[in-house]
Amino acid sequence: MKTAYVNATIVTLNENNDVLKNGYMIVENDKLIEVQQGEFSSTTQVDEVIDLRGKWVLPGLVNVHTHVLMTILRGIGDDMLLKPWLETKIWPLESQYTPALAVASTELGLLEMVKSGTTTFNDMFNPIGIDQDMIMETVAKSGMRAAISRTLFSFGTEEEQRQAVVNIEKYVKRYNKEDSMLTTMVAPHSPYACSREMLEESARIAVENNAMVHIHLSETEREVRDIEQQYGMRPVDYVASCGIFKQPTLIAHGVVLNDEERVFLAAHDARVGHNPNSNLKLGSGIADVRAMLEHGIKVGIATDSVASNNNLDMFEELRIAALLQKGMHKDATTLPVGTVLSLATKVGAQAIGMKQVGSLEVGMYADFITIDPSNKPHLQPAEEVMSHLVYAASGKDVSDVVINGKQVVWNGECKTLDEERIIFEATRFKRSLVQ
Amino acid sequence: MKTAYVNATIVTLNENNDVLKNGYMIVENDKLIEVQQGEFSSTTQVDEVIDLRGKWVLPGLVNVHTHVLMTILRGIGDDMLLKPWLETKIWPLESQYTPALAVASTELGLLEMVKSGTTTFNDMFNPIGIDQDMIMETVAKSGMRAAISRTLFSFGTEEEQRQAVVNIEKYVKRYNKEDSMLTTMVAPHSPYACSREMLEESARIAVENNAMVHIHLSETEREVRDIEQQYGMRPVDYVASCGIFKQPTLIAHGVVLNDEERVFLAAHDARVGHNPNSNLKLGSGIADVRAMLEHGIKVGIATDSVASNNNLDMFEELRIAALLQKGMHKDATTLPVGTVLSLATKVGAQAIGMKQVGSLEVGMYADFITIDPSNKPHLQPAEEVMSHLVYAASGKDVSDVVINGKQVVWNGECKTLDEERIIFEATRFKRSLVQ
Repeated sequence: MKTAYVNATIVTLNENNDVLKNGYMIVENDKLIEVQQGEFSSTTQVDEVIDLRGKWVLPGLVNVHTHVLMTILRGIGDDMLLKPWLETKIWPLESQYTPALAVASTELGLLEMVKSGTTTFNDMFNPIGIDQDMIMETVAKSGMRAAISRTLFSFGTEEEQRQAVVNIEKYVKRYNKEDSMLTTMVAPHSPYACSREMLEESARIAVENNAMVHIHLSETEREVRDIEQQYGMRPVDYVASCGIFKQPTLIAHGVVLNDEERVFLAAHDARVGHNPNSNLKLGSGIADVRAMLEHGIKVGIATDSVASNNNLDMFEELRIAALLQKGMHKDATTLPVGTVLSLATKVGAQAIGMKQVGSLEVGMYADFITIDPSNKPHLQPAEEVMSHLVYAASGKDVSDVVINGKQVVWNGECKTLDEERIIFEATRFKRSLVQ
Repeated sequence: MKTAYVNATIVTLNENNDVLKNGYMIVENDKLIEVQQGEFSSTTQVDEVIDLRGKWVLPGLVNVHTHVLMTILRGIGDDMLLKPWLETKIWPLESQYTPALAVASTELGLLEMVKSGTTTFNDMFNPIGIDQDMIMETVAKSGMRAAISRTLFSFGTEEEQRQAVVNIEKYVKRYNKEDSMLTTMVAPHSPYACSREMLEESARIAVENNAMVHIHLSETEREVRDIEQQYGMRPVDYVASCGIFKQPTLIAHGVVLNDEERVFLAAHDARVGHNPNSNLKLGSGIADVRAMLEHGIKVGIATDSVASNNNLDMFEELRIAALLQKGMHKDATTLPVGTVLSLATKVGAQAIGMKQVGSLEVGMYADFITIDPSNKPHLQPAEEVMSHLVYAASGKDVSDVVINGKQVVWNGECKTLDEERIIFEATRFKRSLVQ
């Protein structure tokens, strides 16, 4: 099956950040086989020609750190300190999750993500009462590309912890597949919620199965202080001493890092998931993305969960990422549009181990989204496309979403998920949960 | 004429921040005469009943500092330092403005503002080649409430500067009216773009006409350094020495203030326009809004122009305001939802001298907007209304806009402005300007 998408403004995010003012792309099954400037004039025989006149096309956005199962908790407990927020709101509610509620909450998150232009995400889910197979099936139905990881905590009895490790190993063996729509990582929650043994077990499983690691690290000053007190090392050194960086690792946050740690992370090919909204909202601070990039660390952009955001709009997230670095460094030239768009697409994809995702070039997977600026005053005058995508657009501007060659959203309508049913069920489950 | 709006969730922003889960409001001509919890059961005879079932209603947003004439410059010159940005991009382009282009650019800004839920704004426009009457007429046609001020600069010859002051005085006498849909202020640009004489003349005109003053102040560390070098005083003291704070004054920015200055500003009933996006984007830094509020200063939220934002979405602006204070002070409880919504509505209105705008209470002007969350995954589950308005919504979620009792936008369609023509003309003028 070959489809030509023609007459579009194509933001390629290739090496030169070329914008093809009037271009076309040919998709064969799941991949891009032609991306060209100019009128559609290919000698390639195609089955279908789709006219995108007036629309902007860009790679689908990549959200490198989220917790989609928490979507139903949106707006419960804002403006609270981290500890009472977790202990009086989030954890008590999560402990009452049922499998059906978890699916409903996941579906609401998937719907929001895909409609707002995210095509790939990297998730860490709290496993209370929930089977990974069920989550994988739910995500598969949405048509999205994802890495879904069951979180390891050192809570509960020794036997429960041992069983958790056994489960993780089983799921890693089943789902860790390179170059697949759905994959998994080994996801110990953090140095403060996992014992040394559990971090060592996580490292072992990752090494034996050649899997990536996904971990919260260096999120707050308090974490750094606590880990130093307990283990005599800062968090990066401590988890390294457990073997964590033997495999490529995505650390979420990295707000509190020094230069020595950045050198270490770069040398070990560790990647960082930058969550600017969540880091602000929880009072953690601002991660120094410019310094990470200067050290050669791959940085992806992420929303974290809606409980600390409170939406999954990657346009908003990449904009605030760009703005914060300028304000933090008092330098308007920091993190310019091409750079921040790359972080939210191809660099983010590379950070989670997906090498053929995130730019519109021959050989890449056909993951792209479109925006029609024609009736949107905030995107007018419409010529400065890259600028508008970074500084003026939002996820609500997205018209079409194609993932792996398939039309998942078309003209704003999701073809894989039943929007009305999902909103109805999420509301019903949320009410029963809160009562 | 009396209209009842019924069956709505009403975010009143009254003194207790009451949210009426199922309420109604009666509008008589331009004012609210009833705001009640419960089914519509008033004994008041009304001419029309409008059902807002499922919708959220909140006061229209108030943007206390913008430059609407610059809307056509969106996306021209991002990621640049302030000086080359002004000197190589903004000023050369503005110097080529024609009256027709100025109107087209203004209309695009008005359209964007009103469709995204802003009902009132405070504008400072660069007067090159443009008559204030024409701008006032253009704004009047949109149906928006505004204070529109012609900027005073000490550029040009002595005679030109003298003429500028004469013009300002004429417009202040004509348009400075309390309790009017359209008013004006005296707007000397800043301590660095106005001479001492011009600041003194501005203060005199404000005092003689009982007008407010609108001025850029304490935006960057460089400004503070330069003014200290030139006048031996920091900017607040310097403009005070010119008589500026004799009248209530809205200072835009206030990024670089110390406690002594905050005490002084509060004592003189000066108000601050907080422009978080613009301050970040231009590398100026983060204003300490929490400290201002602790000192009793009225703070409003603002977008600045699209040239340093790049949109006029007040939802985005109020969200980033809330998030930044939490991140800056490393305290998640800072600037909670009720506070930040107030700043973006009634406190902002008070800051620009409009006392009957910004909350949904009997006796206030009928300026309100609605959002329908029912088909918006990012606003679901839909119960935490104030939270979603601050942390998840955007201007693109706005359905209806009523200003001064009149329906200006209904079901997303602007009734006062011709959207297609405005976008067509803005595009045409922008192309001619850039060539």
